[in-house]
Amino acid sequence: MSSTTKRVGKHTIQFANPPVIVATASVVGPKEGEGPLGNTFDMVITDTYFGEESWEKAERKMLEEAVKMVIAKAQLQWQDIDYLLAGDLLNQTISANYTARNLGIPFLGLYGACSTMYEGMALASILIDGGFATHVVAACSSHYDTAERQYRYPTEQGVQRPPTAQWTVTGAGAVLLAPAGNGPRITHATIGRVLDMGVKDPNDMGSAMAPAAVDTLVRHFQDTGRSPTDYDLIITGDLGRVGRELALKLAAQNGYDLGDKYTDCGLLIYDSERQGTYAGGSGCACSAVVFAGHLMGKLNDGTYKRILGIGTGALLSPTSTYQGESIPSIGHAVVIEKI
Amino acid sequence: MSSTTKRVGKHTIQFANPPVIVATASVVGPKEGEGPLGNTFDMVITDTYFGEESWEKAERKMLEEAVKMVIAKAQLQWQDIDYLLAGDLLNQTISANYTARNLGIPFLGLYGACSTMYEGMALASILIDGGFATHVVAACSSHYDTAERQYRYPTEQGVQRPPTAQWTVTGAGAVLLAPAGNGPRITHATIGRVLDMGVKDPNDMGSAMAPAAVDTLVRHFQDTGRSPTDYDLIITGDLGRVGRELALKLAAQNGYDLGDKYTDCGLLIYDSERQGTYAGGSGCACSAVVFAGHLMGKLNDGTYKRILGIGTGALLSPTSTYQGESIPSIGHAVVIEKI
Repeated sequence: MSSTTKRVGKHTIQFANPPVIVATASVVGPKEGEGPLGNTFDMVITDTYFGEESWEKAERKMLEEAVKMVIAKAQLQWQDIDYLLAGDLLNQTISANYTARNLGIPFLGLYGACSTMYEGMALASILIDGGFATHVVAACSSHYDTAERQYRYPTEQGVQRPPTAQWTVTGAGAVLLAPAGNGPRITHATIGRVLDMGVKDPNDMGSAMAPAAVDTLVRHFQDTGRSPTDYDLIITGDLGRVGRELALKLAAQNGYDLGDKYTDCGLLIYDSERQGTYAGGSGCACSAVVFAGHLMGKLNDGTYKRILGIGTGALLSPTSTYQGESIPSIGHAVVIEKI
Repeated sequence: MSSTTKRVGKHTIQFANPPVIVATASVVGPKEGEGPLGNTFDMVITDTYFGEESWEKAERKMLEEAVKMVIAKAQLQWQDIDYLLAGDLLNQTISANYTARNLGIPFLGLYGACSTMYEGMALASILIDGGFATHVVAACSSHYDTAERQYRYPTEQGVQRPPTAQWTVTGAGAVLLAPAGNGPRITHATIGRVLDMGVKDPNDMGSAMAPAAVDTLVRHFQDTGRSPTDYDLIITGDLGRVGRELALKLAAQNGYDLGDKYTDCGLLIYDSERQGTYAGGSGCACSAVVFAGHLMGKLNDGTYKRILGIGTGALLSPTSTYQGESIPSIGHAVVIEKI
């Protein structure tokens, strides 16, 4: 098979044999369980410690549960999984590292901040379509309390948040891919470039990430010759209310009217007025659990036939924030289609 | 092409058309420049700030220089590079993120601690052999002063170090892969599993990582039916003196006598008695610059025809250390052969 058949345009991969999403699994916290998508998740934990002595340990337990669950749903054993691709927001991605330790599956550690789920789905598809693997799990996690104390302020301090702030989703999502089977397929992937338009406020990550999401969107449309009308839904990971508005504008400036095709996982997961989540959800788990729960449901029941999902990530660090740096961001796009 | 032709045994990838290492580049600090391999590096910086206002900024500048240099050596432009795969030790892998921002190449962020160079070379080979890319750069960096202050103590404090401690290499390495060209080829990859034998001392990472390295080594031999005698050199990333001794013992217990075929990048890069580097070098850059400089030289001049390299990573975090956790570790193996 020649190498050109797997690429369209300059930057987009078109899978020769689109990998199948055999199963997905999602574990979320109480707040996410009380949100509008509450009944789409596989497991809702009732306390954010999940029976552990620290939130960090609770986060990794959620991730481990999600990975175990997706393997069980596919009626497989951990020994059947060729690779686990995972990452999270915590320093040195310890949620993923300790999960990989406990599961014993060959492990490729990723860091894409909140875009990690989509980076993982793209690489998992590459491993499968390339003939290197038959079962790959992509997974990630985030936790409101672990993220806040690492990136901003410990939640115990009760620091007031501005309206542009987003709410890190407590949860973990996992996706199991295979060369064949029942389920929607990943047909394309457009890998993101790191963009930085000078936003420095870690409480306005939506604005920081929107340009990177639109850059990937535009390159995807240019590479494939497609337009928004070719998709039933275009959905970003965690731009929230503020970032979504900016993304709509930036796409229009590039000649693409996203119109009512476009939404954001961060807007779907909470009822922000009722739940006090400011500009919407964020975190690795945001796009992961909305995909694993809500979107998989809508693909499987025929509501959506073809979705363009863009996992968005703010690649900041507390160190770079202290040093006065702006926030570099990325967006990885994947097309999921019920063929 | 059937999927089975790209795999041998359970866990090892055998590339159908082994990707070519078209060029490598290395940038190191003054101490590394004064070490036994000093004349094998492309650039030796004379001060650890590299003209920047912080060590963090110096680290990312070294990484950016290494990536630019490897592209220039291959007589390409950044626009020719399909993907940059990179990571580093700093929280949120900011060296890699800011480098990707400045270069504009589609970016896949990795976290494998000190195994990152080998994780990147394996994934880059997968992208190329799978037909998804024609030019991929894998790169990583580390810096003694940024790593010490993040993982242990700020170097300004002058805290005494035990003899098992290793010295984080200040440097950055980059490897450019393509489907064809002159240069050694990557023929196999065996992805690591996360192992943890209970070592809790962040000043003894060699002992923590040795079991993971040997696990990968043993699986590689079992999958390929090869033994140490099939290689001119077996080299781990940064086990240092203490970890190397343990790796030799563990391999022998598994029936593999590594004998004088086996060494470690952390032992080669410094003259530890003269340079006061304790048990040897460590850090992402350790295996990266030793490969990009010394090993590429020995492959190109015919000294070595077939090398088994194992990038080793200690997947700890200061948070997990404070919480009393032991150190999970990983080793990714890649076979490089001058065909």
